[in-house]
Amino acid sequence: MPDASPAKWHLAHTAWFFETFVVVPTIPRYRPYDAAFKMLFNSYYNGVGDRHPRPQRGLLSRPSLDDVLAYRAHVDAAMHACCEVAMRDPSLAALIELGLNHEQQHQELILTDLLHLFSHNPTRPAIRPADVAARRQAAQRTWIACPAGIAHVGHAGDGFAFDNEGPRHRVWLEAFELASHPVTNGDYCAFIDDGGYRRPDLWLSLGWDTTVAQRWEAPLYWEREREQWRCFTLQGMRDVDPDEPLAHVSYFEADAYARWAGARLPTEFEWEAIARRVRVDDAQPATDSLPDAFGDVWEWTSSSYAPYPGFRPAAGAVGEYNGKFMCNQYVLRGASVATPRGHSRVTYRNFFPPDARWQWSGMRLARGK
Amino acid sequence: MPDASPAKWHLAHTAWFFETFVVVPTIPRYRPYDAAFKMLFNSYYNGVGDRHPRPQRGLLSRPSLDDVLAYRAHVDAAMHACCEVAMRDPSLAALIELGLNHEQQHQELILTDLLHLFSHNPTRPAIRPADVAARRQAAQRTWIACPAGIAHVGHAGDGFAFDNEGPRHRVWLEAFELASHPVTNGDYCAFIDDGGYRRPDLWLSLGWDTTVAQRWEAPLYWEREREQWRCFTLQGMRDVDPDEPLAHVSYFEADAYARWAGARLPTEFEWEAIARRVRVDDAQPATDSLPDAFGDVWEWTSSSYAPYPGFRPAAGAVGEYNGKFMCNQYVLRGASVATPRGHSRVTYRNFFPPDARWQWSGMRLARGK
Amino acid sequence: MPDASPAKWHLAHTAWFFETFVVVPTIPRYRPYDAAFKMLFNSYYNGVGDRHPRPQRGLLSRPSLDDVLAYRAHVDAAMHACCEVAMRDPSLAALIELGLNHEQQHQELILTDLLHLFSHNPTRPAIRPADVAARRQAAQRTWIACPAGIAHVGHAGDGFAFDNEGPRHRVWLEAFELASHPVTNGDYCAFIDDGGYRRPDLWLSLGWDTTVAQRWEAPLYWEREREQWRCFTLQGMRDVDPDEPLAHVSYFEADAYARWAGARLPTEFEWEAIARRVRVDDAQPATDSLPDAFGDVWEWTSSSYAPYPGFRPAAGAVGEYNGKFMCNQYVLRGASVATPRGHSRVTYRNFFPPDARWQWSGMRLARGK
Amino acid sequence: MPDASPAKWHLAHTAWFFETFVVVPTIPRYRPYDAAFKMLFNSYYNGVGDRHPRPQRGLLSRPSLDDVLAYRAHVDAAMHACCEVAMRDPSLAALIELGLNHEQQHQELILTDLLHLFSHNPTRPAIRPADVAARRQAAQRTWIACPAGIAHVGHAGDGFAFDNEGPRHRVWLEAFELASHPVTNGDYCAFIDDGGYRRPDLWLSLGWDTTVAQRWEAPLYWEREREQWRCFTLQGMRDVDPDEPLAHVSYFEADAYARWAGARLPTEFEWEAIARRVRVDDAQPATDSLPDAFGDVWEWTSSSYAPYPGFRPAAGAVGEYNGKFMCNQYVLRGASVATPRGHSRVTYRNFFPPDARWQWSGMRLARGK
Repeated sequence: MPDASPAKWHLAHTAWFFETFVVVPTIPRYRPYDAAFKMLFNSYYNGVGDRHPRPQRGLLSRPSLDDVLAYRAHVDAAMHACCEVAMRDPSLAALIELGLNHEQQHQELILTDLLHLFSHNPTRPAIRPADVAARRQAAQRTWIACPAGIAHVGHAGDGFAFDNEGPRHRVWLEAFELASHPVTNGDYCAFIDDGGYRRPDLWLSLGWDTTVAQRWEAPLYWEREREQWRCFTLQGMRDVDPDEPLAHVSYFEADAYARWAGARLPTEFEWEAIARRVRVDDAQPATDSLPDAFGDVWEWTSSSYAPYPGFRPAAGAVGEYNGKFMCNQYVLRGASVATPRGHSRVTYRNFFPPDARWQWSGMRLARGK
Repeated sequence: MPDASPAKWHLAHTAWFFETFVVVPTIPRYRPYDAAFKMLFNSYYNGVGDRHPRPQRGLLSRPSLDDVLAYRAHVDAAMHACCEVAMRDPSLAALIELGLNHEQQHQELILTDLLHLFSHNPTRPAIRPADVAARRQAAQRTWIACPAGIAHVGHAGDGFAFDNEGPRHRVWLEAFELASHPVTNGDYCAFIDDGGYRRPDLWLSLGWDTTVAQRWEAPLYWEREREQWRCFTLQGMRDVDPDEPLAHVSYFEADAYARWAGARLPTEFEWEAIARRVRVDDAQPATDSLPDAFGDVWEWTSSSYAPYPGFRPAAGAVGEYNGKFMCNQYVLRGASVATPRGHSRVTYRNFFPPDARWQWSGMRLARGK
Repeated sequence: MPDASPAKWHLAHTAWFFETFVVVPTIPRYRPYDAAFKMLFNSYYNGVGDRHPRPQRGLLSRPSLDDVLAYRAHVDAAMHACCEVAMRDPSLAALIELGLNHEQQHQELILTDLLHLFSHNPTRPAIRPADVAARRQAAQRTWIACPAGIAHVGHAGDGFAFDNEGPRHRVWLEAFELASHPVTNGDYCAFIDDGGYRRPDLWLSLGWDTTVAQRWEAPLYWEREREQWRCFTLQGMRDVDPDEPLAHVSYFEADAYARWAGARLPTEFEWEAIARRVRVDDAQPATDSLPDAFGDVWEWTSSSYAPYPGFRPAAGAVGEYNGKFMCNQYVLRGASVATPRGHSRVTYRNFFPPDARWQWSGMRLARGK
Repeated sequence: MPDASPAKWHLAHTAWFFETFVVVPTIPRYRPYDAAFKMLFNSYYNGVGDRHPRPQRGLLSRPSLDDVLAYRAHVDAAMHACCEVAMRDPSLAALIELGLNHEQQHQELILTDLLHLFSHNPTRPAIRPADVAARRQAAQRTWIACPAGIAHVGHAGDGFAFDNEGPRHRVWLEAFELASHPVTNGDYCAFIDDGGYRRPDLWLSLGWDTTVAQRWEAPLYWEREREQWRCFTLQGMRDVDPDEPLAHVSYFEADAYARWAGARLPTEFEWEAIARRVRVDDAQPATDSLPDAFGDVWEWTSSSYAPYPGFRPAAGAVGEYNGKFMCNQYVLRGASVATPRGHSRVTYRNFFPPDARWQWSGMRLARGK
């Protein structure tokens, strides 16, 4: 699967990011660890130069993991000096903060990509030991209402945010309701049992074509074992827990489920309006407004990933981070079990193509208008 | 090209639409012209049943053109009775009006598809005689300003509109300016000459990948003949006229041009807000607000094709007309040289995937915010 | 299906062949009917120049059928003069004879391609009226023995033959037996009923992969209608006649059937050795040696299409006729219902890729050694 | 590249072969090392059961190399007991010998696949240290003549041979000559310089299509560095040595070169007839008849890989070893630098599809008849 990369590549790439955007421009006498790494570990920055093709990342048996760890140590050492400079240079400090947030994103991708890799191994390896955490309790579910009016969305202020979260601007929202909890596995089983995957009238045209071509019958990693749905997870194969939030569905499946349930997906602005309701500080998630919004699954919204009014990508190659992907992708809000704590926020915009299932992606319903 | 269909198919399909959605439900004793046509000429209505695969439409050497014309005459005859009934049945009248608008859409597709077919014929046939119309005069171009505020968009009232044009609702627009005229061939040549097709920094990531994979170097139908750009048109090969509106570019190319020009594409609501400024009647285009908005090229907007708040598709198969395509497509506004007169309006939303070039699609610029 | 061409294209191409290889080199003042036809109707002769891509032949709505018939008449007229010259010029006479045989090949392809085209039309048009010919009688089937020894194979002498049929040469044949009659539909049904299409152990690896990927369950054009196999033919849909020779199977299916039957396919030299046994004149098929060898189905042999020792293609573009296809194709011997009478002969080598099913291709068994 | 497998997979697969075909049927109390390995390391034996898809072998990060080495040790231990039994059981001894020869084949594939993997790594790792061996000396090249007559080909006698090398049988050979030495890099450079890759008249149709689609301009691993051809080898990048035998060309390139040189490829029987001329013992290569036949490159022949008269694959899954691949592949004779010493013999038939370039494959010329 060309979208998944080996863990070793993620480790090297995050060091590459610091080396390329922070160390090299800051430390004149810096000796790059290996000249070839500039191309090997460049993900997609045209402004930096050529890059090793994405689908071939799995072929890189060299450098070894030891080499990559040595690379990271080499860059870390240089970063100490950069941090010193950054104490007096706010724009450098901002770049370093960007690099840290970039690394957090790759920490999540290491997990999504490992799970995907291991799912192709018939021995079904587990990455984590099975935990004996209490089973999730079924939540009392309600609808949270929001009246029509102008909403202020997007990031403003001092805390870190990616460029795509701004500028802060106004939108008009019609009256709507948002579910208090994400859709659960049990909810979704009812959709499957009702023939959801066999009724084209429930699906977007592109979604139906994809479902048929890919032979989807259930979320990614689910398998039917006699009467029970089982699921491959970081702890290996487990029974599907009906009270857990649904994960590993595409935008297409989320949209079809919502249609089946007589509801819809929220827009990203509806989500944000509810999520920030109680809290005004951007950097802290408003957990009490939206239960489970920042710890289980990224939640698909119906919003196509597009620039906010006045959006300007940063100058230079770093400006290639987000803006050029604003086409044919859909915004997800919240955070997942695999997201580093504190990484997300109410204005955070994740995005993936509508057929992506290998992220911890689920949904919550909205309705009326 | 699987998106283009033979003219004969369009003729049969438009008759099929009336037969399936109007005649059969209205005239109990109606004898279908041919039982096989239900499947042969169904475009994409799952609610109607199986259909002949789209990419194979060109293989249908039978029925013959004479058969199809006889089919149309057969359906026309039955339609007379339906129109009688419709005089007393407003919902049937609405269906007939939908069928007429549907036929107008296929009238335009007949032309786009014929042009595409003939472009693959090395003999370069012309569909229309070369016209000796006066050459377009370069227009005086300005920017039309619009202050921030709430705009009312979408169709309301008695005139016909497709379901995707409603409901009428409010949006917040930040201050912006819209170009008084569409981008011309001459404008676009400057982009080409400045290496526009060779600079990845100007393109969306998906657009750059597409441009490289498809080897695009100019709009569709353009060919370089020594120092002159030539273009294949309904009148055969002609020199590209620098003062004519640019046509046959994809969303990707429109977006890249706008970025190169230090501007952007308007959202569909910005376009509509200006276009309706002087006129309040939905059914009439506000030609004096937006010169050339309804006669040359459909204009790409940056808006992904999505449902308006409260959008409900019609019940039954006819509800499959528009809603299920609201994914990975971009909205175009206006009308083109190939659009039947009176077919479009300020709220009309055309839509195509971002790589589509075989429509008469161009653009006009917007800027700031 | 890119291998099939419209009938109109075949008609134009066969005229093109005479115009290009006979008329133009012979008649100095000859005016080509249309300069574009040189490229439009060139099939694959690199020595002649560019050609219109094969998979796009179906897009050529122009020239019209009337144009093509006029083209044929134009070339025919010039051919009269060429025939006059040929009376005194043996090499020109040979070229004309090649053109006639070429046309005969396309007469067969017109039928195979029309059948294929119509099979994609849900209305199942028939090209010929259903004939009331007597049902085939089950034949008394035996094995024809041939002792080990040297066989003389290949064409020699005055009659016409394609270049790939020569030179005449010697081969050593071990003792073997050849079936007196081709495999019938009834024979093949036993293979299907025994799960032949579900047992990978019966198939070549490439054949099994193809069968699975293409979802083959029966020969091309066969459909199961309750308990009966039905088949699409030039006369429309008909019940499969168990006593008729099996047709429209690939080399893979022929090979798997033979393995299932505890036998094998003959080599082309084994086939020729038996077929020529009684008759020594190359130009006449030895019908009494090999019943049904020249009227029902082309018979797959196990011989990969390769050059005979000493094979030299003709000089010039005409030498591209056969030799360059000698790779990854298998030889078929005999002739089929669609082959013009007198076209084939005992040394005639037809050839197709092992997955081709749209020809009238079947088989007869061989065994031991 | 789906045909190449990781070295770890080869190590596991060769142990799997012994475990599956020798140990399990022989030692009743044998405990398989890991139940999942039956499916993980089965290459293509349908008779054994399901298998992990070939193109996904590179995704198997588990089991680890240590696990695989432990697996090999476990199987080795059991093999001791099997060898004891084999001392009294000739058919078991034959199976063990088959397993040893199978392992030798994978020893060669480990090298071909590693070279291919490393060629995709921009750091160009070397597997072996650069050797300071003397440069190859240009050989005195002649033609070895062979008169027409019956040749006895194929293996007979006591020594080991794969099933596809038999039965021994007779073929008729017309008079021919075979080059005394393989084609060298210098020879092939003349073909390249003469525009060999740009002249369709030199190529088989399928070869020309492949060359154009794949953009071949030189053998695999060759790169142009200003005026010098350089080549990626097991010792890293090196200058191309004009006197070394040409390697890493496809059948298509070999065939085109031969045509350009006014010669042809030998059939496998012509090759064998010369190679065995002096020696009558099958198990020893006749090195003095055919210089360089068993140590540099596998040599493409013009023979499609087909069964010998009377060929019977072994019963059971082991019979799937060779026979089912006898379609669309071409035979190579000899041995290469990567072939374990003593593995090949005059009757040994290697085989690959005509577009394969990642083996050490070259050629020697033949001519007349």
